[in-house]
Amino acid sequence: MKGKRFVFAKHFDGVPKKSDFELVEEEVPPVKDGEVLFQALFISVDPYMRPYSARIQTGTTMIGEQVARVVESKHPGYKVGDNVVAYFGWRTHTVLNPDKNINPLDNKPSKPYILPDFGGVSLSTALGVLGMPGNTAYFGLTKLCEPKPGEVLVVNGAAGAVGSLVGQIGKILGLRVIGFAGSDDKVKLLKEKYNFDAAFNYKTKDVTEALKEAAPEGVDCFFDNVGGVMSSAIISCMKLYGRIAVCGSISAYNDDPKKPTLAPIIQPSMIFKQLKMEGFVVSRWLNIWQEGIAQNLQYIKEGKLKYEETVYEGFEKIFDAFIGLFKGENTGKAVVKI
Amino acid sequence: MKGKRFVFAKHFDGVPKKSDFELVEEEVPPVKDGEVLFQALFISVDPYMRPYSARIQTGTTMIGEQVARVVESKHPGYKVGDNVVAYFGWRTHTVLNPDKNINPLDNKPSKPYILPDFGGVSLSTALGVLGMPGNTAYFGLTKLCEPKPGEVLVVNGAAGAVGSLVGQIGKILGLRVIGFAGSDDKVKLLKEKYNFDAAFNYKTKDVTEALKEAAPEGVDCFFDNVGGVMSSAIISCMKLYGRIAVCGSISAYNDDPKKPTLAPIIQPSMIFKQLKMEGFVVSRWLNIWQEGIAQNLQYIKEGKLKYEETVYEGFEKIFDAFIGLFKGENTGKAVVKI
Repeated sequence: MKGKRFVFAKHFDGVPKKSDFELVEEEVPPVKDGEVLFQALFISVDPYMRPYSARIQTGTTMIGEQVARVVESKHPGYKVGDNVVAYFGWRTHTVLNPDKNINPLDNKPSKPYILPDFGGVSLSTALGVLGMPGNTAYFGLTKLCEPKPGEVLVVNGAAGAVGSLVGQIGKILGLRVIGFAGSDDKVKLLKEKYNFDAAFNYKTKDVTEALKEAAPEGVDCFFDNVGGVMSSAIISCMKLYGRIAVCGSISAYNDDPKKPTLAPIIQPSMIFKQLKMEGFVVSRWLNIWQEGIAQNLQYIKEGKLKYEETVYEGFEKIFDAFIGLFKGENTGKAVVKI
Repeated sequence: MKGKRFVFAKHFDGVPKKSDFELVEEEVPPVKDGEVLFQALFISVDPYMRPYSARIQTGTTMIGEQVARVVESKHPGYKVGDNVVAYFGWRTHTVLNPDKNINPLDNKPSKPYILPDFGGVSLSTALGVLGMPGNTAYFGLTKLCEPKPGEVLVVNGAAGAVGSLVGQIGKILGLRVIGFAGSDDKVKLLKEKYNFDAAFNYKTKDVTEALKEAAPEGVDCFFDNVGGVMSSAIISCMKLYGRIAVCGSISAYNDDPKKPTLAPIIQPSMIFKQLKMEGFVVSRWLNIWQEGIAQNLQYIKEGKLKYEETVYEGFEKIFDAFIGLFKGENTGKAVVKI
């Protein structure tokens, strides 16, 4: 049986190119004692892959999470038909001893996690609302933005996998939610499907003007997915003792490290508004991971949390899905169905 | 009897000019019941005056703190010879009912505070190490940088009123302290008088290079007095879970608000190093103000905390003292002796 994987062939220089990857087709090795053969069902593409790729060696499989199914098992903990979520990377088939799996992001052991019954919810959500992006939204907002009912929350990248959840959880918690996204269709989605109080297309509306209209008394909480000039503008509109969770900086991920993006400095706002800003990587909450998943699943069941997926069909489409993140082409969570 | 005051005549446009102030000489009014006549001994100039001046109306006395002595009193709480520290502004004589004094910075009541016996320490320190700048250093560092023994602390504006204290308190708390200042003389002072582990002239040494040498494993705590490009460089050298206290942004105070300083964005460092940054105004700790003063006084008495003053002689020299802040001409606390 043949398997396919994308090898990280060349470190990105600016915007990732298809030629930075090499598609390798190879025989799937036999399953030895203690090993399991996993077959990918959905592979995730996420913005973090761009900056984290700098840490991986060329010649190795491209990093990433996937939902996979056990098709053969010689390990007592995994049986045929089990579905898992794991950091296997961009590959269709994976043979390994699950106890020895290593997450290349931090070089720590990372056992494939057997998914519970999702009760009709697509397994792909284990890569989205019921996985890393869902917990990024839930923990980032609740732990770092310290939101209080009645406060004003701004989120950018608001139609994305994380942003759309941040805004909706903000609404559930009783905040006034304002979103920025990059197209009129996305803005419509934010207002109509996700119930944002206000939403703007940052490509056609000045961010400062928008916030003067929608939050004349200032912004209490800012969940930042974008970074750069837009973030400086939002930060300049914050209220005394505002809180900023810095989750992503997608506007800058393709920068030349020698020519970083410049933006208006934020220190004067930080000082005179006495703002608090904290950057985070969601793995800091691994010890309470399932709390976030359970809470988001409950919100979904109660009809309070909606989610969108942009599904690309076919393993070869991974690059298109990935580059779509930087072109703003995806709405909600982008996944590749294998 | 004649008194003098500097009236804020024109809102600053870029670097403050002498012509933005008007020197007014006028009769000191008689002291009515409940009032006190205070005569200024030392007047403070501080960087915050530049940004805060935007909040005050032209035609009023320029803002600022002073140490003054009671020369006549019809108020039971104040007796002739008492020394106070108070927000009276740039004026030689002040007649008012102390119970009704208002701090123009926040429009809140602000009673002139009667200074205890300083035991030989100059009264001018009530504007420096035993006053607002001292508490800015003490609380900003201990509360927001969360310093732990053995960690690396970086402070810029390190020869200034606040920075020089931050570095020394860092040393007292067992940190490795690295300072940046704007002249070789200041660098010498940091190393020889204040016992910094390393110090650099940022005008002649690249900040990133300096930190590669002096803190190859990264920076845990950063106390920022400067903002802008230098801050971006320091932040890019921080360690996982580093903490940043944003105290001042003197590099940007004379910016045209329509053309703000641009600097390399800090969001990527904030995220991947999971940094925490908090801006502050020291008045947030008014409720524990005397704790900071007492601690710094004790450090002075123990010979652990040294301080420097740049003393300008004569009321008319206030402008020179003030503009010296932005030219980097002052070492330690700048005060004007009346």
